[in-house]
Amino acid sequence: MSPANETALRRSGVNSQDLVARLRVGDRRSLARAISMVETGGPQARELLAAAYPYAGNAHVVGITGPPGAGKSTLVTALALEWRSRGVTVGVVAVDPTSPFTGGAVLGDRIRMQALGGDPGVFIRSMASRGRLGGLARATADAVAMLDAAGFQVVLIETVGAGQGEVDIARAAHTTLVVEVPGMGDDVQSIKAGVLEIADVFVVNKADREGADKTVRQLRAMLHLADRQPGEWEPPVLTAVATTSTGSAAIVDAATRHLAYLRETGLADARARHAAERELAAAVQELALERLRGQAWHDLVARIASRERDPYGSAEELFNALFHG
Amino acid sequence: MSPANETALRRSGVNSQDLVARLRVGDRRSLARAISMVETGGPQARELLAAAYPYAGNAHVVGITGPPGAGKSTLVTALALEWRSRGVTVGVVAVDPTSPFTGGAVLGDRIRMQALGGDPGVFIRSMASRGRLGGLARATADAVAMLDAAGFQVVLIETVGAGQGEVDIARAAHTTLVVEVPGMGDDVQSIKAGVLEIADVFVVNKADREGADKTVRQLRAMLHLADRQPGEWEPPVLTAVATTSTGSAAIVDAATRHLAYLRETGLADARARHAAERELAAAVQELALERLRGQAWHDLVARIASRERDPYGSAEELFNALFHG
Repeated sequence: MSPANETALRRSGVNSQDLVARLRVGDRRSLARAISMVETGGPQARELLAAAYPYAGNAHVVGITGPPGAGKSTLVTALALEWRSRGVTVGVVAVDPTSPFTGGAVLGDRIRMQALGGDPGVFIRSMASRGRLGGLARATADAVAMLDAAGFQVVLIETVGAGQGEVDIARAAHTTLVVEVPGMGDDVQSIKAGVLEIADVFVVNKADREGADKTVRQLRAMLHLADRQPGEWEPPVLTAVATTSTGSAAIVDAATRHLAYLRETGLADARARHAAERELAAAVQELALERLRGQAWHDLVARIASRERDPYGSAEELFNALFHG
Repeated sequence: MSPANETALRRSGVNSQDLVARLRVGDRRSLARAISMVETGGPQARELLAAAYPYAGNAHVVGITGPPGAGKSTLVTALALEWRSRGVTVGVVAVDPTSPFTGGAVLGDRIRMQALGGDPGVFIRSMASRGRLGGLARATADAVAMLDAAGFQVVLIETVGAGQGEVDIARAAHTTLVVEVPGMGDDVQSIKAGVLEIADVFVVNKADREGADKTVRQLRAMLHLADRQPGEWEPPVLTAVATTSTGSAAIVDAATRHLAYLRETGLADARARHAAERELAAAVQELALERLRGQAWHDLVARIASRERDPYGSAEELFNALFHG
């Protein structure tokens, strides 16, 4: 679409059904635009998500998380190439908080990702939104839904770190790969922080480095301490050298086995119900804020800031005014 | 309070005003109980927060974040001791996602923290809640508010990692210390991920290790790349060996200077307004969910999971039913 058309379309208001129809037949500009819209949020985003909703729910969503410097972007590229070699289409959502210094990306990563450039079976999107209500986890889940509705069979989510934010983002994934590297941190602390709970597959990347065997052994030892029911998924600990694509096939195999496990055990259905409830709750929360923001809201904020009022009683007052207004 | 009294009080329902009155005169059991209540959330938590709200807003809230293994707990202990030596009371909220393996804490940290035990001018609380609506960031901010209302002059928040979740938690702080250690990661990647944006003070801990000078130089070099307005705060890069309390005085000085900077520039007021708006939004969102959850909610969740319905239209329907019901 030419910039002139783009502007014309924007002026005329976007028809969500049309946009979804176009992204579903492979129109990459429509897909990019749809993701931008859901990243922004608001009523138009909800309309678009509603239109796309019936077509999503088919992709295998795979989260890739781990500490900075673990080589996640390179691994994502290697895995995407592996899936492509199997004829599977791949969407990538890179959750990379913007930074005034780096622009949220290291040049080397971008260069490596160019190996995927020009392939219509791949779509890469970097999320940089911060302002969005509900935060990055929300925007990421919605971007994944768009790639899913567009028919990408695997959607990879790359997240930095392993804190609570990443746990929230990981909820959008069926399968979470946790990437470690040899010698990060000198003890088990490097893999505490809730990571063991979210990991479905461990990948020790940069496995050609000294200490890789030790890291693998430590991870396996920790996993053996876990109480597991018979038949419960035990996260495999795999090794990779992402820069040379070593280990990619085994990782893709493990992720695929994990999805089969979720489906066979009914966990995939349970996950879909939880996701549905989260989506509904998020939509309700967004609507509540939209409907309650007005003059009374701004007056109350000023009085809360000066501690004349408290936020909790103020919220009740706004709600009650809405019901009787 | 004896367990019997505790049970009796629970049965009788808690009087929020009483609980706040008690925690304000130094009753540590009441404070512990109040934090547990806000950690759980819900209507009783909101009532308690409303009662405490007029008394909060006075503490200097200091976030301490950084990668796992950076020695944050030890640094928190050293800083708390330094503030105590200046006659300042200190609350600590350690945000430590529970893990089935470690219980979210390493024994050594707990032992070091015992240096603070028995001092009525110190209160330490570990946050482990996950289920709470709005997540850990919300629960942490509320726990900080309780310590603030109880009169602690400095409240330290220790968070693991440096992802989006930690950025959200950092918003509750006036001053954010970002802890790095020599040789974590081999390049600038280890300090991307939004950390530069949230850091008010950098601390290179374990500065007796090889490579500390290099890490300090790299941080300073990155900071010099930033566009700063004249008079704008420039984060100092300090060194510490937390295990021997080396560097604590300079860090406490820097944090104190930073608070003075916020007050002199009016940024402290702007921050209070933003915090007020966030609190109001969070309260509104909690109320919305409470009021809309019912039979219709559960029916809709099932139909959303099967993709018969979409979450966005469903949310509108729930809202409209409430207004006309």
